[in-house]
Amino acid sequence: MKKNRKLGRGVAIVGAGMSKFGMFRDKDSKDLFADAFRELIVSVDKGFDPKDVDALYLGNFSNDYFMHQAHWGPIISDLVGIAPKPATRTEGACASSALAFREGVFAIASGFYDMVLVGGVEEMSKRTTEEVAEGLALATVPYEGRAGFTFPGVFGAVATAYFAKYGAHREHLMNITIKSHNNAPLNPKAQFPVTIADLMNKKKESLQKREGAAPDWQTEKDFLADARANPVVAWPMHLFDCCPISDGASCMLLVAEEIARNFTDDPIFVAGLGQGSGRGFHASDDLTYFEATRYAAREAYGMSGLTPDDIQFSEVHDCFSIAELVHVEDLGFFKPGQGYKAIADGATRLDGIKPINTSGGLKCKGHPVGATGISQLYEVWTQLRGLAGARQVPAGDLRIGAAHNLGGTGGTCTFTILERK
Amino acid sequence: MKKNRKLGRGVAIVGAGMSKFGMFRDKDSKDLFADAFRELIVSVDKGFDPKDVDALYLGNFSNDYFMHQAHWGPIISDLVGIAPKPATRTEGACASSALAFREGVFAIASGFYDMVLVGGVEEMSKRTTEEVAEGLALATVPYEGRAGFTFPGVFGAVATAYFAKYGAHREHLMNITIKSHNNAPLNPKAQFPVTIADLMNKKKESLQKREGAAPDWQTEKDFLADARANPVVAWPMHLFDCCPISDGASCMLLVAEEIARNFTDDPIFVAGLGQGSGRGFHASDDLTYFEATRYAAREAYGMSGLTPDDIQFSEVHDCFSIAELVHVEDLGFFKPGQGYKAIADGATRLDGIKPINTSGGLKCKGHPVGATGISQLYEVWTQLRGLAGARQVPAGDLRIGAAHNLGGTGGTCTFTILERK
Repeated sequence: MKKNRKLGRGVAIVGAGMSKFGMFRDKDSKDLFADAFRELIVSVDKGFDPKDVDALYLGNFSNDYFMHQAHWGPIISDLVGIAPKPATRTEGACASSALAFREGVFAIASGFYDMVLVGGVEEMSKRTTEEVAEGLALATVPYEGRAGFTFPGVFGAVATAYFAKYGAHREHLMNITIKSHNNAPLNPKAQFPVTIADLMNKKKESLQKREGAAPDWQTEKDFLADARANPVVAWPMHLFDCCPISDGASCMLLVAEEIARNFTDDPIFVAGLGQGSGRGFHASDDLTYFEATRYAAREAYGMSGLTPDDIQFSEVHDCFSIAELVHVEDLGFFKPGQGYKAIADGATRLDGIKPINTSGGLKCKGHPVGATGISQLYEVWTQLRGLAGARQVPAGDLRIGAAHNLGGTGGTCTFTILERK
Repeated sequence: MKKNRKLGRGVAIVGAGMSKFGMFRDKDSKDLFADAFRELIVSVDKGFDPKDVDALYLGNFSNDYFMHQAHWGPIISDLVGIAPKPATRTEGACASSALAFREGVFAIASGFYDMVLVGGVEEMSKRTTEEVAEGLALATVPYEGRAGFTFPGVFGAVATAYFAKYGAHREHLMNITIKSHNNAPLNPKAQFPVTIADLMNKKKESLQKREGAAPDWQTEKDFLADARANPVVAWPMHLFDCCPISDGASCMLLVAEEIARNFTDDPIFVAGLGQGSGRGFHASDDLTYFEATRYAAREAYGMSGLTPDDIQFSEVHDCFSIAELVHVEDLGFFKPGQGYKAIADGATRLDGIKPINTSGGLKCKGHPVGATGISQLYEVWTQLRGLAGARQVPAGDLRIGAAHNLGGTGGTCTFTILERK
């Protein structure tokens, strides 16, 4: 990268919404987006006229595959009542809506539009687990998927490489799982709002009833170490290292900086944008980092003039526990090989020095892939606005937060820094 | 639309390439994109270093469905050697790469990037015709596809509505087919480089041999009126009213206006950008026009300050013959209900007052859906640069050309005006 990239015109977020994430047999993609959009409407403090929306960008990974319906841009522009305004779908696997956000920013920064709706949606739970796994494999690069690598296998390989290089082990990943499950009950949108401690106690009770004796689990890690509670998926990825299958939608309203205060006295500004692409595991000399994430981080830090130390909290793509670990290093929050120690010391907990995934993360909030990128930015916006309730980062005076989104096996990575001024 | 939209920074095209379009059993999407990119490289007069490309935007409709592979952005960024630079896929059905072009323009106009590669690709012919029809139906809106409307049926309904309202009939559509087939043999990239006259004579010969007598076809219209040569698909859409199934790729190199002359002494500038979305046929009070196309045209004319009369020639989305007819009216080239008369008078022929689809159009050049939008812009660029050889518009002093791209049943429509200064 030759220079620090800048936008010719600033962009602010003046409203946001997301549906509850989960598995909804009775809601389709339109219902879910409507839930998110309704929340967005009331989130704009001074109100706005949906007729003033100039364009829509929508992230969706593959409702083509999951729901046999592509071309979601105009379906959603019709739903929210802005047709014939333009609607563009972006796809970057699990980073699809982070791309929609970015294109919305560019469209405004270009001077062409003043108000853009960005969002994401995915509907996955109506398919069987096998069908979802097959659908997600479409997001790997050909050398991976066709070689039999599914996502748990890919991230299992990352974990073994990380363990071998840095001496970490499975217990370090458990810290990440336990932390995410501690945050999720504080998030009313989360798919799994339950702590590992509670799960352990429930499981103990049920085993006591069924088998007449309860396991001797003293700590959450005892529970996670027991295959009865936490079976292996692709070693060392166990069930509780893996995010769930989810349905959901998310959206945000972006406007040009100079008109932001017409809509709210508390706009949140886009301080840094970054995106990178990855070649795939066949081309990697070292599986313990993601080049695309590092590139995205350089771009976003360069634009913002900020450093990793300036980021007060961040959402980080934790499709698997190991993903959160390697990415907090790739983003510069911790040095390579040091992240697992910092996490063990509590650095990433809600009350830590660098809270990560206050929402519960993909692991517990859920991961409707096309909706995830903007749901992460929704969490950052919510925290910066001081609206996060029980999960509000207690550090006080939050000014700068960020979100990292990953698509496929690192094929598409984004890093977005938001700022309250 | 409240104002004439403007870009904060001008954008120019300094190179372009496309693969041959056709059905290629021995070439996959990467091979096809490589063909297009190789031509682009040599098309940049003063050369460029691919390492200076800041980002890629790639249009693809649904290789998800056709080839069981999504997430094509990073696959192509790897192919052309620009990873870890960002790569974003756009999807708007058959308008997917017109969206990629537009996002590339916004990314540069925003000030963030200076040089962006945009392209499109689709690989369809390895599926059966039935599978392709099923895949394309993913691009309709739910009320259409699920109601049994496939594309020939949708455009058949447009044609019957147009006939009923304006008194046109099938023979008027034949003028469009004959014109496209006259242009295609002049385009070395076309899938069907053959005139209707030649097809008629060949068919006569073969019937003479096989049946001992040739049909009494005197004119091309006699041939097209005979069900032996031109069977009905969905009345009044016959075989020769419908574009083919195709594979292909296309790409362009965009740069900021102020550096364009570092790459060529003859840059082509983006004068007007327009995009609209459509609600679907269930919501239309009149099937003889496409609101999304009209919206896109207003946006592009507004930005450019140009009028329909200023457009010297245009590519127009002719997935079916009737589509070309209604769109030349929607774009303002002819008044509603007057297009078929102007076409009958030869206005849209290569030597007419408003040449349309000099490339042969989707009908004869081919329609690999994700590649089509940028292939249309490639034709406009080629004509404006005076590089179109035997199909060069003979009017002389070409300054302004345009391309109209349609996705689905009008769900996504774009109109882009290019200018040589």
